[in-house]
Amino acid sequence: MSNGKERAYFQIPPGMKDWLPGEAEKKRRLENVLADLFSVWGYREVITPAIEYLEVLTAGHNQEEMMYKFFDHQGRALALRPDMTTPIARLAATRLKQEPLPLRLFYLAGVFGQEDPQKGRQREYHQAGVELIGSGSGAAVAEVLALAVEALRACGLKEFTLSAGHVGVFNGLVDWLGLPPEARQELREAVQARNFVAVELILNRYAGSQKEAALTILRLRGGREILPRLKELAAGEAMEATVAELEEIFSFLAGYGVEDYITLDLGLLRGLGYYTGLVFEGFSPALGYPILGGGSYGHLLGRFGWPQPAVGFALGLERVLLALEREQPRRSGEGKIVYVGYAPGREKEAIALALRLREEGKRTVLAVAAEEKAVAEEQARRRRGELVYLG
Amino acid sequence: MSNGKERAYFQIPPGMKDWLPGEAEKKRRLENVLADLFSVWGYREVITPAIEYLEVLTAGHNQEEMMYKFFDHQGRALALRPDMTTPIARLAATRLKQEPLPLRLFYLAGVFGQEDPQKGRQREYHQAGVELIGSGSGAAVAEVLALAVEALRACGLKEFTLSAGHVGVFNGLVDWLGLPPEARQELREAVQARNFVAVELILNRYAGSQKEAALTILRLRGGREILPRLKELAAGEAMEATVAELEEIFSFLAGYGVEDYITLDLGLLRGLGYYTGLVFEGFSPALGYPILGGGSYGHLLGRFGWPQPAVGFALGLERVLLALEREQPRRSGEGKIVYVGYAPGREKEAIALALRLREEGKRTVLAVAAEEKAVAEEQARRRRGELVYLG
Repeated sequence: MSNGKERAYFQIPPGMKDWLPGEAEKKRRLENVLADLFSVWGYREVITPAIEYLEVLTAGHNQEEMMYKFFDHQGRALALRPDMTTPIARLAATRLKQEPLPLRLFYLAGVFGQEDPQKGRQREYHQAGVELIGSGSGAAVAEVLALAVEALRACGLKEFTLSAGHVGVFNGLVDWLGLPPEARQELREAVQARNFVAVELILNRYAGSQKEAALTILRLRGGREILPRLKELAAGEAMEATVAELEEIFSFLAGYGVEDYITLDLGLLRGLGYYTGLVFEGFSPALGYPILGGGSYGHLLGRFGWPQPAVGFALGLERVLLALEREQPRRSGEGKIVYVGYAPGREKEAIALALRLREEGKRTVLAVAAEEKAVAEEQARRRRGELVYLG
Repeated sequence: MSNGKERAYFQIPPGMKDWLPGEAEKKRRLENVLADLFSVWGYREVITPAIEYLEVLTAGHNQEEMMYKFFDHQGRALALRPDMTTPIARLAATRLKQEPLPLRLFYLAGVFGQEDPQKGRQREYHQAGVELIGSGSGAAVAEVLALAVEALRACGLKEFTLSAGHVGVFNGLVDWLGLPPEARQELREAVQARNFVAVELILNRYAGSQKEAALTILRLRGGREILPRLKELAAGEAMEATVAELEEIFSFLAGYGVEDYITLDLGLLRGLGYYTGLVFEGFSPALGYPILGGGSYGHLLGRFGWPQPAVGFALGLERVLLALEREQPRRSGEGKIVYVGYAPGREKEAIALALRLREEGKRTVLAVAAEEKAVAEEQARRRRGELVYLG
């Protein structure tokens, strides 16, 4: 066996992660904090299978080439889920239609995508998120946005911000500009990539005298005070409806006391292909990419035969843990232990003592053989534990 | 689109499961009870990726044909893990060799196998388990067995038993019988399947005058008092060493006070291909198949370049939840909620009230629009919640 082969044999595939002791415990603690928060807001946990029919997943997610695809023994095309919103839409539309609306669901789940691991992206990563299904009211959207703020707060992040945009702003803008369809797609991609050089080139070609106003809108950032400015810049019914919706959402956000965390960013668009209304992303100053993303989606449930508006978000647990690590580098992941060592003949007393300590809730490691006190001391020291020795 | 096609489109693949609200919460609660128990016994959580190189997984698990296999974009052969023992052996041998021994690790994870779903077997199922790596002492094996009992107790099961056998009994027996290699394999399969008709036929052919003794051993069940009987029935060094090991394990089990839960069953063998010493299975009278399985494995770590004895077990969360359900059919999965409804104009007070109730830890559903009191009453009733209405 060659050296290279040996090494491959012991490795994990690129983009995969082993969580060592301490790391895994931090993840569990974070998951429970979020599960408790979502529950107390009236959301109920669901779990969907990691494997679904490929055609179910492609009904929602537009990046089939990223998915891990395979066949079962019967030759059916399957894939690992690349996100949770589509599976939960399927679940809600097939199993939960009889429940009182809106449904409020949450999940904690691993998802899979063959992204380029060189960009620091995991190919298996873990998300915590909620979906509110059956209402698109300003109150519903604001509730989910406020819960996103509370979730990042509950994670223990000291500094974070949310940027919010609205798909209606982009659509209102291209209507107002009267862009031909091919230019709309081109502009959408440039805006999504935040490539303002490309945006300007496209507007030069198509926007004429409206170019400056369009550029201003796509760069508009701030609190709800920018909304009147948006109405001045680009008229049109669609835009007015969007501004009215944003006004309503922001009036509810003020009630939640979370307005200060949220910046309107009218050039924000998200890529997943199912968002139709408000979209938002969460950022930590410690990381250069979003730690949370979400928005309103109007048509996804309809693809599963149950047309319902919905709104949700997902946060990336790996990303939040990394941001926390950078904020507080020395936070320990694990509780202290007690190490129980014993001399020959004291086995039964040592077991009884360990059982008692565990009942008191102390993390107790019991030696697996009688040993001298010096050995036990070394064992306890290496585990950074407190020694109890039965001599 | 035909009807059949429509239906497939909304389904999940056979052997997969959607966990509805309530079910998912029961699973999370059970997982946390087990994580707390394992932690207090000094075990530390690890997480490995769901996807590994196929050759890593086949190093431990002998049923490649069951695995979900596929290729990544670079053409490397990958598979979904069919169990956790092999990935944890890889993780320990590559990342944790420098830690003080024995390592005590635990996991809560989904695993995958294309078993026949008609037999009621899931193709994705969830396990909770521990691995103690770096010791094969009687104390170590007894600790893991005692922890298996504590785990089933912590799950809330009222009635359960553990059966324990030892691979050394079978090996000692075939040595003593002087069976040719092909007959050993045949007998192993018959014993594993508990097919005593086939066992008798094989013994008729090969065992001669020792047949009755062999049959008696393979059917021997009871407490530690059966061990002297085993020594009388089949002599030989290998058998004597096995009996001495079982005696030692049972003397530690008495210290843990769990002896009464454990029945020696000398015909018990397990199928995974890596067990070398004690093997055990847990049963609930409510189910016809094991809810827990484990044992000692002496060679698996060596396949990853780090020869170390080890012992562990996994319990099946779906199976334990099903057994619990059958023991206590009406146990509710979810906490009560408060439903906050409000009349037009009372939005902000309703938000403030909901935030206050949530801070008190009450699960609070806030209406997504102003509504009449009768509507709010109906909403609260359908959610089996308590109504607070701001009129």
